[in-house]
Amino acid sequence: MASAPQIAEVLLEVLPYIERHREQTFVIKIGGSAMSKSDCLANFATDVVLLQHLGVKPVVVHGGGPEISGYMDRLGIEPRFVDGLRVTDEETLCVAQMVLIGLTGKRIVTALHQAGGRAVGLSGIDGGLLVAEKLRKDSCDVDLGCVGDVTEVNPAVLHQLLADGYLPVVAPLAADREGNHYNVNADHAAGQIAAELGAAKMLNLTDVKGFLRDPQDPASLVSVLTLDEAKAALVSDSASGGMLPKIEGCLRAVEMGVERAHLVDGRVPHALLIELFTDGGCGTMVVR
Amino acid sequence: MASAPQIAEVLLEVLPYIERHREQTFVIKIGGSAMSKSDCLANFATDVVLLQHLGVKPVVVHGGGPEISGYMDRLGIEPRFVDGLRVTDEETLCVAQMVLIGLTGKRIVTALHQAGGRAVGLSGIDGGLLVAEKLRKDSCDVDLGCVGDVTEVNPAVLHQLLADGYLPVVAPLAADREGNHYNVNADHAAGQIAAELGAAKMLNLTDVKGFLRDPQDPASLVSVLTLDEAKAALVSDSASGGMLPKIEGCLRAVEMGVERAHLVDGRVPHALLIELFTDGGCGTMVVR
Amino acid sequence: MASAPQIAEVLLEVLPYIERHREQTFVIKIGGSAMSKSDCLANFATDVVLLQHLGVKPVVVHGGGPEISGYMDRLGIEPRFVDGLRVTDEETLCVAQMVLIGLTGKRIVTALHQAGGRAVGLSGIDGGLLVAEKLRKDSCDVDLGCVGDVTEVNPAVLHQLLADGYLPVVAPLAADREGNHYNVNADHAAGQIAAELGAAKMLNLTDVKGFLRDPQDPASLVSVLTLDEAKAALVSDSASGGMLPKIEGCLRAVEMGVERAHLVDGRVPHALLIELFTDGGCGTMVVR
Amino acid sequence: MASAPQIAEVLLEVLPYIERHREQTFVIKIGGSAMSKSDCLANFATDVVLLQHLGVKPVVVHGGGPEISGYMDRLGIEPRFVDGLRVTDEETLCVAQMVLIGLTGKRIVTALHQAGGRAVGLSGIDGGLLVAEKLRKDSCDVDLGCVGDVTEVNPAVLHQLLADGYLPVVAPLAADREGNHYNVNADHAAGQIAAELGAAKMLNLTDVKGFLRDPQDPASLVSVLTLDEAKAALVSDSASGGMLPKIEGCLRAVEMGVERAHLVDGRVPHALLIELFTDGGCGTMVVR
Amino acid sequence: MASAPQIAEVLLEVLPYIERHREQTFVIKIGGSAMSKSDCLANFATDVVLLQHLGVKPVVVHGGGPEISGYMDRLGIEPRFVDGLRVTDEETLCVAQMVLIGLTGKRIVTALHQAGGRAVGLSGIDGGLLVAEKLRKDSCDVDLGCVGDVTEVNPAVLHQLLADGYLPVVAPLAADREGNHYNVNADHAAGQIAAELGAAKMLNLTDVKGFLRDPQDPASLVSVLTLDEAKAALVSDSASGGMLPKIEGCLRAVEMGVERAHLVDGRVPHALLIELFTDGGCGTMVVR
Amino acid sequence: MASAPQIAEVLLEVLPYIERHREQTFVIKIGGSAMSKSDCLANFATDVVLLQHLGVKPVVVHGGGPEISGYMDRLGIEPRFVDGLRVTDEETLCVAQMVLIGLTGKRIVTALHQAGGRAVGLSGIDGGLLVAEKLRKDSCDVDLGCVGDVTEVNPAVLHQLLADGYLPVVAPLAADREGNHYNVNADHAAGQIAAELGAAKMLNLTDVKGFLRDPQDPASLVSVLTLDEAKAALVSDSASGGMLPKIEGCLRAVEMGVERAHLVDGRVPHALLIELFTDGGCGTMVVR
Repeated sequence: MASAPQIAEVLLEVLPYIERHREQTFVIKIGGSAMSKSDCLANFATDVVLLQHLGVKPVVVHGGGPEISGYMDRLGIEPRFVDGLRVTDEETLCVAQMVLIGLTGKRIVTALHQAGGRAVGLSGIDGGLLVAEKLRKDSCDVDLGCVGDVTEVNPAVLHQLLADGYLPVVAPLAADREGNHYNVNADHAAGQIAAELGAAKMLNLTDVKGFLRDPQDPASLVSVLTLDEAKAALVSDSASGGMLPKIEGCLRAVEMGVERAHLVDGRVPHALLIELFTDGGCGTMVVR
Repeated sequence: MASAPQIAEVLLEVLPYIERHREQTFVIKIGGSAMSKSDCLANFATDVVLLQHLGVKPVVVHGGGPEISGYMDRLGIEPRFVDGLRVTDEETLCVAQMVLIGLTGKRIVTALHQAGGRAVGLSGIDGGLLVAEKLRKDSCDVDLGCVGDVTEVNPAVLHQLLADGYLPVVAPLAADREGNHYNVNADHAAGQIAAELGAAKMLNLTDVKGFLRDPQDPASLVSVLTLDEAKAALVSDSASGGMLPKIEGCLRAVEMGVERAHLVDGRVPHALLIELFTDGGCGTMVVR
Repeated sequence: MASAPQIAEVLLEVLPYIERHREQTFVIKIGGSAMSKSDCLANFATDVVLLQHLGVKPVVVHGGGPEISGYMDRLGIEPRFVDGLRVTDEETLCVAQMVLIGLTGKRIVTALHQAGGRAVGLSGIDGGLLVAEKLRKDSCDVDLGCVGDVTEVNPAVLHQLLADGYLPVVAPLAADREGNHYNVNADHAAGQIAAELGAAKMLNLTDVKGFLRDPQDPASLVSVLTLDEAKAALVSDSASGGMLPKIEGCLRAVEMGVERAHLVDGRVPHALLIELFTDGGCGTMVVR
Repeated sequence: MASAPQIAEVLLEVLPYIERHREQTFVIKIGGSAMSKSDCLANFATDVVLLQHLGVKPVVVHGGGPEISGYMDRLGIEPRFVDGLRVTDEETLCVAQMVLIGLTGKRIVTALHQAGGRAVGLSGIDGGLLVAEKLRKDSCDVDLGCVGDVTEVNPAVLHQLLADGYLPVVAPLAADREGNHYNVNADHAAGQIAAELGAAKMLNLTDVKGFLRDPQDPASLVSVLTLDEAKAALVSDSASGGMLPKIEGCLRAVEMGVERAHLVDGRVPHALLIELFTDGGCGTMVVR
Repeated sequence: MASAPQIAEVLLEVLPYIERHREQTFVIKIGGSAMSKSDCLANFATDVVLLQHLGVKPVVVHGGGPEISGYMDRLGIEPRFVDGLRVTDEETLCVAQMVLIGLTGKRIVTALHQAGGRAVGLSGIDGGLLVAEKLRKDSCDVDLGCVGDVTEVNPAVLHQLLADGYLPVVAPLAADREGNHYNVNADHAAGQIAAELGAAKMLNLTDVKGFLRDPQDPASLVSVLTLDEAKAALVSDSASGGMLPKIEGCLRAVEMGVERAHLVDGRVPHALLIELFTDGGCGTMVVR
Repeated sequence: MASAPQIAEVLLEVLPYIERHREQTFVIKIGGSAMSKSDCLANFATDVVLLQHLGVKPVVVHGGGPEISGYMDRLGIEPRFVDGLRVTDEETLCVAQMVLIGLTGKRIVTALHQAGGRAVGLSGIDGGLLVAEKLRKDSCDVDLGCVGDVTEVNPAVLHQLLADGYLPVVAPLAADREGNHYNVNADHAAGQIAAELGAAKMLNLTDVKGFLRDPQDPASLVSVLTLDEAKAALVSDSASGGMLPKIEGCLRAVEMGVERAHLVDGRVPHALLIELFTDGGCGTMVVR
């Protein structure tokens, strides 16, 4: 516990950051694994509510991968992969929808309420927030099923919830004009929502240190990536697996006008606050 | 297809109803079975969107029973009943939450979008809409688990969505002050939401003709129930099973200021429109 | 009287029309003869109030010819015509002003009140709505007197009445900057008001079937006239007499941005509703 | 023409009056005879526009007696009187409506426009401003016809016009719930409108010096009448003929909350300004 | 004391001026000497309050020279001049700040309150109204000290006070970005404030007749100066001493968009009213 | 400098305090001696700006005693005391007014600007904020001169400045209805302003530890005083000299509805933050 003078000192140290972030919209992506420990979720929720009290307008976008796999397993749904891509049939989509919206999203909402905020969980289906079409991979001749590519973002419902003082929590699902539902990548969705909302920042809380030039070497962490460097990274060996959509999401956001997109190491306690209110930002920042 | 003069005639016939309902809030409960046929859901959605275009502010509250049972079965969760009440353990609650919010609610949202409306699906957990406590039945000494009794309704989020032109779709879940989630009865929730919203009407779309004095005799349909008659019915033999919470929901609504609560036969095509825009209302109406 | 299912069916059939017309401004011209039978007027008023309840913002512009002639006759004022144009001296102008504003306009206002609306009758003189100058016909060397050519429309007073929920009813009189009053053609005035209000439609309720290629042959009705065809018609033999200003009014409206201008056969009961809410539109439509 | 210092002196002299009247609503009744000379009307209009520029919200209510009689005569309508009251049949009502709304009202509107204001002429029929019922005189067994007694005032339309910066000009006609029109006394109407608008003053511009204790003796002018004295005057010999409704109108206004009601000698040039901006108020003031 | 008809006459004479000035912002500079007699100040305050009641938004900027000199003398601060410019050291600045803001400004505020207005006295330091930098004269190599040159005007605080109905009273001090205070010339400040406020007029109340072509010859008064003539005057012999900044202030205002800048002879009683509400404007007007 | 995790820890520790203080108005009194060191003033300003960024609406009321005495001395004004009260003649009042408003107030304004805020310095004279009458002490028969007793607070100007985002800085001067100015006690003024503003707290930054039961014994600090205890203290030996008005100011505030009034030891660096955002509040708190 800090002493009174220390507290005063810290408040004054963060004052310039508070001034800088006031009235700005931040989109914060949190992955499924980052929420598995209830402690982590409570910490995250407290950070977000504090951000709101300091004048920021936070929008949370979440994943939920591990839990989806768990339920698929219990329901006896066999995962099928083609060229490394998961084939998402109707049944798999239902499980994703149920878990992401019905479980993960509401768990975050309740954590935010416990931390003193007022939150509303919704999905890209609601209010026409995310319009998608079926993702088609030229390189592969198998039907991937209900995986969507977001083609339009209608952020009106988010603007209104923020204006009314709510913390929106968004599950990455989408619908097309015919009423079909799609699973969409949460990292991509966060980037596109940030861009359409006119957010000042997109922060992606991951379970790695950031972007490593050499994935095996923690010392090769890249602090700042320009757009060009980020594009180069996408086709290099450095970015692979889950890192690919994370960098793509940052790229989309920054290309469409978001000032800065951050990959933040969510395993560090209160990484959000450290990133936003100290010079000791951890992870990788993508800038124009 | 109607002829042009017939269309004009009908529009003029419904004009007095339009005037009467304008600017009023109606809470409409729809059960899980009523939505099983996709045709039914599309019809229902069109009716609700039409209502909104005629100046009404509709709020949808839904159930989802059959599908919950289906998933429980597939997940190998054994249903346990004590004195006719379902014991809802943590796992059952998760399934209810997933199905109601993640599947049923979003299906209704998408149906409303297809019919031309803009909808947002949420649950009683969001925005603190429904605050519950653990339901305790004096008569039974078994712990029923996560079944909740709604003790507080905070309709702010609904008022704001309605003011912004959205159709709110509410799944009957709730949270307590400690962050525990509860399954709540949809009929009760609809009645209480109607009361707190200051709704003019609560309409419960069922799969029966209405309240029958003699459940075996369709001819014993009661068109109008006063509060006292409704209370008497609750302790009579006439109301039993699923009819009990439906009448209780109507009672709660009317006791707390809703002008009229209706049990409407949802199997009749476009029953909502017939109930609201013709003299030929079907079913049972509870009034003060 | 329609059955309940028929009513529901019709409401659903008109839903797409309701969606299309919502929040749009329609200027509706009604001629003096169309109002001579009190039945007609009551029907017309009900249609207009219904339109308002369905989300349309209607503005009524009216004529009043037959009654003006009646009062002139009783007052012993001799009609004088030059080249088919009525010479409007001061006395004639007074009669027109009295009849149109004092009698016809208020009769419409009261009919709208009886149908459930709230109406305000005014003239182009009020709020500077219609500014005119003396009409000068190059072709004729006789002073036509107080016949005006509208040179400016100030729709502020109409916008405000509509925003406050009133149905404006406009008599076709105007004033110039020096305070002289003028009688203006109601068909022209309706077209110009529609244009300046940014109306989506102008509907002219006439006592003919529409524009006939051959005025003697009802089968020669033209359903759609483009701007060029309408201009050609003005110099052809097809358009003559009262049809000329009607087509001119439609032309002015469409040239200045109104999407569609309609000549509607006002003798058909509830012609307005049929035109707006069915495919069986009667009469002639002028489009760009 | 005043010298520059005189102008400054006068402006400073009237400053306290300007402060006192700011933001207040004044109802100003002007009679038909007061407007017969165009000079008078122009002066009156200039005074009213000046009032508005000095922060007052003026509402004009007008009569139009002499011109109505002129047109009745020309139309060959025989006046009939019973016990001194004019029998107003349908035809007479039409003439009153036409002359008051169509001629007199619009003449005032145009005069106000020429003086630099923006005016809208309407009648008690419009916006449901004046609701009346058939006047029944116990003392007389003849049907007086379409003479109305105002039973309800709905000033919403006036509040809205004033808020939008318009000068409302009201003709004293009314309608009942069944849509019948009535002629109502302008002095009464002005008093009741003033009361319902929450006006601070009602000013009745007459063609006499004010209320004379002895109608034959100009020196018997009464400057101030309390409510009780006004009631006594009504049953005395002092008040008779046209003076009766004028005192009744003042009484109604003051009884219902208007601070002061004035009978002003409208023959004095710019009597309104003198009454409102100098100590030399002319005429009679009714106070609580 | 004027007679009632004279008062009416004058009000009507000034009506066109009232219409012209309504809703406009006027910046009024008053010098220290003009306020030395309490009578003058009271007159000035009454004029300003009257202006506000007539719909004008006045902003007062004041000097205070004589009193500053008096206090410097009493505090034993020796005035130092270099090339005719006063060297303003820290101590002199403190005296200027104290006298202008603490004494002169509050005296004006209280005079405005006594005249019936609501005033707020502030300085260019408050709300960042006037941002200055140290004035550097190329021609002189002595440090003039705390004399500032206004480089930025932030009129938000004035707009807000005016919108709330207050009369702002501004003392001519300024601050730079580092928090140093400066004395700035009141004539210049008034001109720049007028320009940034979008004022329609700047009126400088002086103690001379206006700009004289030959300073010794009162008959050489120039009524109108164009921008070019004003620039020429600045480098001529005609303008010298205190007249220089006054003409510069007018120039800056008019160059930056103020329609008219006036030098008014403040010794004439109620010169403001005479200038604004009569044709007999006294003094010199600078126009584009 | 704190480490990143420490910063996060502190932010989370203060979160409950931030939630508690949001949207509340705090009146903060700062004495003249507390501002003598420029360091102190800069610290104070930073604290106030931080408060505003954390959602608090701060109003500063200041004294300025030492500097007033300094200028009086330099101007050769002899201090006169009667029964321990300073006799404030016209000249002394002028010095107080000049120093408080012109120097001290603007120094605070500039310090707040340097810390990143937007401030406006005004006095109780401005906007009629503080209305006073001449203070009369029954016990003493000498005229104390221009010392005022505040009889009315009109906080409108403060509400408006706060709503517009400004930090108001108030010098303790007042005026009476006749336009006379008065010096008023800053401690009293702060208490009365807090009460009329509906402030949640009044904080008086002093140069002592708080209220000591035995003024000689620092260990006798009283942490909490109820209203009754505070009243008792006023007539005891414990409170004397400058402590008397400080306790009176707290008393007035709490009696009129302010929840808590604090005497804070302003010599502790960032005492404001420590008082408001930690449990280690220093000094004495007066509560109901």
